[in-house]
Amino acid sequence: MSRRAASVPDLVRGAREGDPRSVARLISLVEDRSPLLPEVMAALAPFTGAAQVVGLTGSPGVGKSTTTSALVTAWRREGKRVGVLAVDPSSPFSGGALLGDRIRMEDHALDREVFIRSMAARGHLGGLSWGTPQALRVLDAAGCDIVLVETVGVGQSEVEVAHLADTTLVLSAPGLGDGIQAAKAGLLEVGDVYVVNKADRPGADQVRRELRTMIAMADRPDDAWRPPIVKAVATTGEGADEVVAEVARHREFLEQDGRLEARRTRRAREEVEAIALAALRQEWDEARGDSDLDGLAASVAAGELDPWKAAETLRRSL
Amino acid sequence: MSRRAASVPDLVRGAREGDPRSVARLISLVEDRSPLLPEVMAALAPFTGAAQVVGLTGSPGVGKSTTTSALVTAWRREGKRVGVLAVDPSSPFSGGALLGDRIRMEDHALDREVFIRSMAARGHLGGLSWGTPQALRVLDAAGCDIVLVETVGVGQSEVEVAHLADTTLVLSAPGLGDGIQAAKAGLLEVGDVYVVNKADRPGADQVRRELRTMIAMADRPDDAWRPPIVKAVATTGEGADEVVAEVARHREFLEQDGRLEARRTRRAREEVEAIALAALRQEWDEARGDSDLDGLAASVAAGELDPWKAAETLRRSL
Repeated sequence: MSRRAASVPDLVRGAREGDPRSVARLISLVEDRSPLLPEVMAALAPFTGAAQVVGLTGSPGVGKSTTTSALVTAWRREGKRVGVLAVDPSSPFSGGALLGDRIRMEDHALDREVFIRSMAARGHLGGLSWGTPQALRVLDAAGCDIVLVETVGVGQSEVEVAHLADTTLVLSAPGLGDGIQAAKAGLLEVGDVYVVNKADRPGADQVRRELRTMIAMADRPDDAWRPPIVKAVATTGEGADEVVAEVARHREFLEQDGRLEARRTRRAREEVEAIALAALRQEWDEARGDSDLDGLAASVAAGELDPWKAAETLRRSL
Repeated sequence: MSRRAASVPDLVRGAREGDPRSVARLISLVEDRSPLLPEVMAALAPFTGAAQVVGLTGSPGVGKSTTTSALVTAWRREGKRVGVLAVDPSSPFSGGALLGDRIRMEDHALDREVFIRSMAARGHLGGLSWGTPQALRVLDAAGCDIVLVETVGVGQSEVEVAHLADTTLVLSAPGLGDGIQAAKAGLLEVGDVYVVNKADRPGADQVRRELRTMIAMADRPDDAWRPPIVKAVATTGEGADEVVAEVARHREFLEQDGRLEARRTRRAREEVEAIALAALRQEWDEARGDSDLDGLAASVAAGELDPWKAAETLRRSL
């Protein structure tokens, strides 16, 4: 097959019609930071906003991929079109190659109503905030009812995914150390639905009790929503329907009192800011003369200039 | 005692003379993002650059605080003036209050040649990059030969500390799970000296062997330096002298071929950029009218505007 470059309008039309190849190409443009992105995003904007963005987070080993697969099965039973975005902030690899442990997703690989994509989120531009929201827009415009974002990897990204989502699922499991781990990672504040996975193992009820206590003590932003704690066994699909029902209930909750709008405005704020800051950084990288960032940095390192004056020079260059 | 506001020149003079109160006040100005900071940093700049900045990182439970204390003792035996900055990126608390497990540092609390300070690194401005370098400048100008930066907490900050340091110490210990954990956290790439702490426990030699193998396979930036792996027992001080000697040897290595200058220029680059970006964010937060970020975000969330056009509007407002 020839790899003829499709035009942006063609790709956008293809994506809206649910063509997996067009969806994949558009997400690759995001990954590659293509100069076509402003045109792509302008064309997609009118067709976004319908999808419920569901974030999935939890410590390594908790069963995120298996849970994703079980949830996709449950959503498909309800006839929903589902997008899955597995974001790896540490991966140097781009492209649509499936990650190792995403092999379980092969159950859904032939389903035309399921879009699965792994994406590298490279660079030091604040982890997930630059590319992921734009990839979400592609899946949203492609008519997905649900877009599930799962982060692979460690650290900050586990909490960051909550910033992107309408609804955040936090996974725990027995036998992974005490609940203090979740507390430390800041996950008690951000979950909308908690899932105790591997609930057929000893200790699941204790994990649930601990979570309940710790969530009650956590400094949560919205007391009107009491996050449910659902027990599940992702490998058998047990509990997946209940999680799906709670996700739907949370969507209804968000639609009251302007909550969904508020969350999405906050998300758009971060997205817009990240795009603007990335553009500024690029300008500074390319600058020469007085506002050459490397030259300023060398003077600061030598003690000839202080960092505030250097920053001021940089800003004046805009 | 009256809490009369000392002038910036007074505080800078006090800090240069090694007055702990002045040092503490200046670091508080950094924490509080005081509008006096440009003046403070301009006054300090000529007196910076002598200190060796040593980063200390490793998983929770590995013995970071105890190791810090043992190293301070070893440096003091050599007559060095030492600053310790314990940065907690997740803490909402500011001020000089010592953290719980820093109680061990009380050994050094009465030593006028040791400055110990814990600092909250709040905000979403990229973790450590905004305030920490400025606090380092204060300790540097106060005549510290060594400034040790230890991060408390989890995630990204463990790797970030390496960006700030001339020399990075990575701690491991037996019995904390396999070395894969270190690999995942990205610590195999950033260490200049590896320390296997708790070396009196079974498994220390195995940890060392694993580390050696994994470091050899890691994608490290500078092959000319082969990072040593030192066994230590921080609670008894065993191995501390050897670590101190390796840190000195690494400083000598850095002073060849412009390596120290290159590291510090890179650090200054991040510092200057972080200050400039923070100022821009503040401008955008306060903007009204066409470049009101909240207004732009609401339009993006509603699908009336795409994020690239919104970002362009924001940038044009500068």
